[in-house]
Amino acid sequence: MSFPRPAGVSRNRLTTGVLAAGVVLASLLASPAALADKTEDAIQYRQAVFQTLAWQFSPMGAMVKGKQDYDAEEFRTRAERLALLAQMPWEGFIAGSYDGDTDALSKIESDRAGFDKRAEALMTQSRALADAAASQDLDALRSQFVETAKTCKGCHQQYRAD
Amino acid sequence: MSFPRPAGVSRNRLTTGVLAAGVVLASLLASPAALADKTEDAIQYRQAVFQTLAWQFSPMGAMVKGKQDYDAEEFRTRAERLALLAQMPWEGFIAGSYDGDTDALSKIESDRAGFDKRAEALMTQSRALADAAASQDLDALRSQFVETAKTCKGCHQQYRAD
Repeated sequence: MSFPRPAGVSRNRLTTGVLAAGVVLASLLASPAALADKTEDAIQYRQAVFQTLAWQFSPMGAMVKGKQDYDAEEFRTRAERLALLAQMPWEGFIAGSYDGDTDALSKIESDRAGFDKRAEALMTQSRALADAAASQDLDALRSQFVETAKTCKGCHQQYRAD
Repeated sequence: MSFPRPAGVSRNRLTTGVLAAGVVLASLLASPAALADKTEDAIQYRQAVFQTLAWQFSPMGAMVKGKQDYDAEEFRTRAERLALLAQMPWEGFIAGSYDGDTDALSKIESDRAGFDKRAEALMTQSRALADAAASQDLDALRSQFVETAKTCKGCHQQYRAD
């Protein structure tokens, strides 16, 4: 199979090793022109996932900060989406996709283990946020929101140019 | 609450009426400049969701057509993601967001009931595809994939310029 396997979905968490091997294999099998297209597609894909994720995150932040009324159902729906979206961008970080129209640093390639740990942290923290949202314990929810936001920021500081 | 409520999530399906009312209210409360930003954000958001959705859909198509080996777990993971992503783009179709960098036609505004029916169809068909993927009945899965693809195409023909 030449397509990189999807990361995540808790009931079938594929290991990062398998994912990385799939990506490398896919790169070896592709022609140079197809590879350029594939690289651009991967960049656009991961950016699209993060944009979708940010859209869900923003009103949750407004609720946590009291700038928007807390709506338990909306918060829960958005937190659940966030936890699922958090599993998706990683297959877009393929070899050779750190030039061009991207802020992602090539450090992701040279320090893949460190990056994968950050990716894992986002999946874990956003899952915990969805669980906190379901419980409707507002203190837990607020503190878990902050933890999740810190996870985003920590990764950006290490692996994103801005 | 000024933020449009999220559509979908089966355990708490909010009605289109509530969603539309939220969007109208949000428009009335926003300043003209904030409104322009909001419109652009909404366009980019819905495009990001559809791009993420297409990325999940593509390898499923390759498997159905025999261009890629069928991998039950990958298919199921991607189908599950598709069903969840299918609930997300609709809140991006807000009043006044049919000019500018978008292929979405203003017919969406003038025929909102028709558009909402198409949106509902994508949610239903992609949910059925995820169920078929879980059952691993290959004939059912293939035929449900085709139904889902038809739902995309049918909506594009009516409401998208291309």
